[in-house]
Amino acid sequence: MSGAPRLPPAARSIVAGDRRALARAITAVENGDPAARPVVRALYPRTGHVPVIGLTGPLGVGKSSLLSALIGRLRAAGRSVGAIAVDPSSPFSGGSVLGDRIRLERRADDDGVYFRSMASRGEAGGISAATREVARLLEAAGFSLIFVETVGSGQVDVAIREVATTSVVVLVPHLGDEVQTLKAGLFEIADVFDVNKSDLPGAERAARDLSELASLGRSADGWSPRIVRTSTTAPMGLDELWAAIEAHERFLDDSGARATGERRRLAHEIAERVRERVGRDVVGRLQRDRELRDLLDRVAARGIDPASAADRLYRDRYRAR
Amino acid sequence: MSGAPRLPPAARSIVAGDRRALARAITAVENGDPAARPVVRALYPRTGHVPVIGLTGPLGVGKSSLLSALIGRLRAAGRSVGAIAVDPSSPFSGGSVLGDRIRLERRADDDGVYFRSMASRGEAGGISAATREVARLLEAAGFSLIFVETVGSGQVDVAIREVATTSVVVLVPHLGDEVQTLKAGLFEIADVFDVNKSDLPGAERAARDLSELASLGRSADGWSPRIVRTSTTAPMGLDELWAAIEAHERFLDDSGARATGERRRLAHEIAERVRERVGRDVVGRLQRDRELRDLLDRVAARGIDPASAADRLYRDRYRAR
Repeated sequence: MSGAPRLPPAARSIVAGDRRALARAITAVENGDPAARPVVRALYPRTGHVPVIGLTGPLGVGKSSLLSALIGRLRAAGRSVGAIAVDPSSPFSGGSVLGDRIRLERRADDDGVYFRSMASRGEAGGISAATREVARLLEAAGFSLIFVETVGSGQVDVAIREVATTSVVVLVPHLGDEVQTLKAGLFEIADVFDVNKSDLPGAERAARDLSELASLGRSADGWSPRIVRTSTTAPMGLDELWAAIEAHERFLDDSGARATGERRRLAHEIAERVRERVGRDVVGRLQRDRELRDLLDRVAARGIDPASAADRLYRDRYRAR
Repeated sequence: MSGAPRLPPAARSIVAGDRRALARAITAVENGDPAARPVVRALYPRTGHVPVIGLTGPLGVGKSSLLSALIGRLRAAGRSVGAIAVDPSSPFSGGSVLGDRIRLERRADDDGVYFRSMASRGEAGGISAATREVARLLEAAGFSLIFVETVGSGQVDVAIREVATTSVVVLVPHLGDEVQTLKAGLFEIADVFDVNKSDLPGAERAARDLSELASLGRSADGWSPRIVRTSTTAPMGLDELWAAIEAHERFLDDSGARATGERRRLAHEIAERVRERVGRDVVGRLQRDRELRDLLDRVAARGIDPASAADRLYRDRYRAR
């Protein structure tokens, strides 16, 4: 690493493979603890070179089992794998939505795999910046491949595009009309579709339907989504799923789309951070700052509408210099 | 309306009960069309007086059927009802997730009910400001009661707190471990819990479990969540559900929590609008503005990390004056 500054001790421990140092840094990132900053900053130059594979889809389609099965195969092939599960339950104090993740965490005796679930704190947008930082910590810790599993709003997490280099949307043969109609929109997220639980009836038709939809369009960068069928109980299709993911990663390199995508994601991440900071600042000032408190009083008294108040605030205080 | 300025024609039509003018204004709000602004602004002083009832919960718990049944009863009792369904599918061009909403839209021949589904455009946070504006348009159009139905991230939509005066979390007897563990967190959202599909086995136990959890805490304003059981097929419990909602609305008036809540929601709405504006501005400038493009280049080249770049941007350009 030519010209790289000396690493702070915590960062050095992470690079050296100290899993407890890694866990502490992740917790600090997750909590927005400023102590994480120098570590993340120091490690940033060592990152951006490994695939980040996103798995998203509705609850109950078997994403966690699929991830577990994939990791098993990748480990058998000698790959080291880091995995982040973004937990939708945890804007709150309470527990995890995804009980079956425990299965993954039990791999604790294998040093070549690291699993971590992260709380989504209900801050809209906040999750993707934190998730990206944790992915970077995992990369700096030496994992050659990162998975990010997420549910998100609308049963698939749109924000996965801001984190993953390859996005896999996981569905099941019969999702009911509710989700069937969603498919068209999914093409704007998915690089790979996986019809999981394909031992159930209807899998072939579901895959065919998806193929027909896929033939109607392709993504802006020229990639046509692949459709695969898997089952973790049979098991079947896991090699095909991995081949489809690898094909997309190769496409990113061959087409130059990797750099474009990374630039787009970084711009999004920076904007998200500035936006969240401004949002927190406004909420604080509406309570503390005399002039802003008066403005809120007038809005509450119906003297000025919220959009006009926001315009004024933006214009007077937050417009870019 | 003493001292109220003269209304623009579109606003006057809405107040006079013109449903097409209402539909046009809602579409304009939904699309972020600036044409909506003078209408929304002019009508704002006429709003803030009706209950806004939020219904949230996972897909498949029967929220739409429940809403339909509730609206049927309220109509029979002579109440005029506006309903907004926030549609999680629609960050995309594609269709609606919630096919059974068609049932509601078929009430088009009844002038005392108005149903509208709204696209969530995937702009994190953006939905609640737009939803609030649409709720205001419905109030200005004379509806005495507004429902907002939403799914959202994590199977319940946290943002409902920023829109509704009373939030109802709808569950079903057996949601599986995935959602069961979520309950504790739900108490920070729910004023009322509804165990829907209570004709199914396990309903009594589910309600008892919720009651036990509810007895452990109460909300910051002193309200203890009510737990009710409903079924739209039996049907059963609909009167009890409505009674629980009305009890919470009475509590808001009696305790003074209504004004506090409204002030909190308005502050959130203003902050959200300023934040979104700054976010859009940053993304635009990272492409257009020479200095910011250079900054993004340096981030992409791993010369500076995204958080530090965001810090610099915030400090130099967006920190409040």
